[in-house]
Amino acid sequence: MSHSNTVESFTLAPGFRTAAVACGLKPSGNLDLALVAADGPCSAAGVFTTNRVKAAPVLYDQAALAENAVGIRAVLTNAGNANACTGEEGIANTRRMAELTAYALRCQPEDVLILSTGVIGRQLPMDKVTQGIAEVTSKVADTAPLQAARAIMTTDTKPKLSTRQFESNGQTVTISGFCKGAAMIHPNMATMLAIITTDAIVEPDMLQAALRAAVGRSFNRISVDGDMSTNDTVLLLASGVSGVTLDSQTLPPFTEALTDMCTDLAKQIVADGEGATKMIEITVTGAQSEAQAHMVADSIARSPLVKTAIHGGDPNWGRILCAAGYSGAPLDQERLRLSFGDEAQRLLAVERGMPTDYDLARAEALFQGNPVLIQLDLGLGDFDATVWTCDLSKEYVDLNALYTT
Amino acid sequence: MSHSNTVESFTLAPGFRTAAVACGLKPSGNLDLALVAADGPCSAAGVFTTNRVKAAPVLYDQAALAENAVGIRAVLTNAGNANACTGEEGIANTRRMAELTAYALRCQPEDVLILSTGVIGRQLPMDKVTQGIAEVTSKVADTAPLQAARAIMTTDTKPKLSTRQFESNGQTVTISGFCKGAAMIHPNMATMLAIITTDAIVEPDMLQAALRAAVGRSFNRISVDGDMSTNDTVLLLASGVSGVTLDSQTLPPFTEALTDMCTDLAKQIVADGEGATKMIEITVTGAQSEAQAHMVADSIARSPLVKTAIHGGDPNWGRILCAAGYSGAPLDQERLRLSFGDEAQRLLAVERGMPTDYDLARAEALFQGNPVLIQLDLGLGDFDATVWTCDLSKEYVDLNALYTT
Repeated sequence: MSHSNTVESFTLAPGFRTAAVACGLKPSGNLDLALVAADGPCSAAGVFTTNRVKAAPVLYDQAALAENAVGIRAVLTNAGNANACTGEEGIANTRRMAELTAYALRCQPEDVLILSTGVIGRQLPMDKVTQGIAEVTSKVADTAPLQAARAIMTTDTKPKLSTRQFESNGQTVTISGFCKGAAMIHPNMATMLAIITTDAIVEPDMLQAALRAAVGRSFNRISVDGDMSTNDTVLLLASGVSGVTLDSQTLPPFTEALTDMCTDLAKQIVADGEGATKMIEITVTGAQSEAQAHMVADSIARSPLVKTAIHGGDPNWGRILCAAGYSGAPLDQERLRLSFGDEAQRLLAVERGMPTDYDLARAEALFQGNPVLIQLDLGLGDFDATVWTCDLSKEYVDLNALYTT
Repeated sequence: MSHSNTVESFTLAPGFRTAAVACGLKPSGNLDLALVAADGPCSAAGVFTTNRVKAAPVLYDQAALAENAVGIRAVLTNAGNANACTGEEGIANTRRMAELTAYALRCQPEDVLILSTGVIGRQLPMDKVTQGIAEVTSKVADTAPLQAARAIMTTDTKPKLSTRQFESNGQTVTISGFCKGAAMIHPNMATMLAIITTDAIVEPDMLQAALRAAVGRSFNRISVDGDMSTNDTVLLLASGVSGVTLDSQTLPPFTEALTDMCTDLAKQIVADGEGATKMIEITVTGAQSEAQAHMVADSIARSPLVKTAIHGGDPNWGRILCAAGYSGAPLDQERLRLSFGDEAQRLLAVERGMPTDYDLARAEALFQGNPVLIQLDLGLGDFDATVWTCDLSKEYVDLNALYTT
């Protein structure tokens, strides 16, 4: 498995092209409409927000994939407006976006998936969107998605792209994607959009299984503020142009490469978390199940007290144990073992639930660094889970106090 | 039912005295040790943190109440050190505090309850505590708990006291208490201590039932940052000196007055939340059960995106619906009805899940005021719940980035 993250040279998997335009949805005038178009029909899979308030494009895409998971031709994404809480007019506008795109690309509306991100509760200005679709469909030719990755950004400060390749019987399969997301990020992918392409030949059911497994250990393991959005979606399209057909033998390495790529994208989201100054990696081991390990790690990752302490470079480990204690997972405080830092310079701070005689200056140095690595062993079993989050800063408050106005 | 909240004139229920000293646990040199002593043995009840990491005094008090719920004589509280994650030495120190207090008050160690609040993971400096207990027990005489309420404060900016009285067959029963808490406040009473006194005669089982009901609708309905501490405790002691015995007839008005007093204390905690500039009251109606109404209200109250928007005076209602959507409770987005403000000037912002043609300037005025009142009707049933929280400000980050060091 090889990988490259050079943003400029980055390309989608063979069989896909891209374009991006500014159609006036962002007040800044920046790029806000992105198209990924396939040269032919693709197998497709999607994982969607579990929020019970779902945006119009989420409802639309779920229906489209249920009926047409072998013939997807394009994904159109707009930023600046989430098309959520917009009722029937919102649904009609999503359908209209698919129709306009399909007309220009000479395919059927049900071959087009739609993604939206931005402010909730406002109708899309369809005159601008209509004009934008005419432009973006006429420009689609590029294979480098950097502009598309920029177009889907909201409060992100940088585009997020990743690619992986693996060999199957001497042939190369590429998996390549881009995503956005900087707040409302939490397990179940809040305000997170990702568009992933591959040139493998994959049955839709197999593609869906691989995507679900990959998302479960990547995008669903990150947290910025614990909020979950109405729009989160990860789409995976397979062009098949590599000629490599995935089967039960080759699905595991494909899923592994996909998980690795999704984890790379997920960590880019956390590193770009709103107001974030550092990344935090929390690994919980010794749990009775992976779900319980995840519960504990997630509870620590969500704690504002832990996140502000790390922002201040303060090794206030009591807050970590406290957050572990209220996760809901079984815990025996006399078995807890907490350490910081990477393997080379690990510092054991708590053993059997009590502080060791550790070097406070070393602990402070580890908490003032970036990333901050935390390991908590529960001493109850053999399962583990890792989550990634970021610190909570005053800039987060600034960014979110006046977002709509 | 009458009530008075004048801090200076405030007294405990008849049958209780109080004292407070500074013994050096707070670096500031402020009062940090508080004693509430009863003139005779009391019925007692307690509600404790559900965190699986429990401080030594929580474990001690739970055991004491299980064995001796009719003979409690005193509650000793220290601030500045939580005595949590302190192992057997911590347990021994709690027991020693009870022994020293009992010796001075001429009762048994099992008649004394202990509360601690402050930093986690450090052993108590028992030389200072021993000296402090000698002083505080020699001073106990006052019935005005203002100094005791100050002594138990950590990051609180003001003491919190409340009292209620009700008549039973021409006789007056008093319920009077004080509490502390400014962060880590969340359902199940994180980092919250409350000591409540009454002069009613009450069987321990009845007292426990009344306290559990009152806490369930007051302290467990507030949230500052979603964190839950290792030490949270609400204690209720009944001296019996009013001569009024509570029975199945008089328990309901007692529980009502107790709930009302606890709600007053709980709202004082939220109003003094770390860095808080305003209080937020969230009422969810039309739920299929009270538990589901509470889940939705709590999810909104915990959302950093909602709390920062309100801090900025921004009526970003999409974040409210979004947080409702991921609460886990059943929801039909097309039935949602959202309004702001009090009954006199209620503004309907969302109907059937979509924005109304509301007056944005009025919505902004409501979000820039204090308190901010939010009502969400789910349109699914007849149950409701109200929670209280505060906004999220940059001062919260400042306060928590450097608490231990």
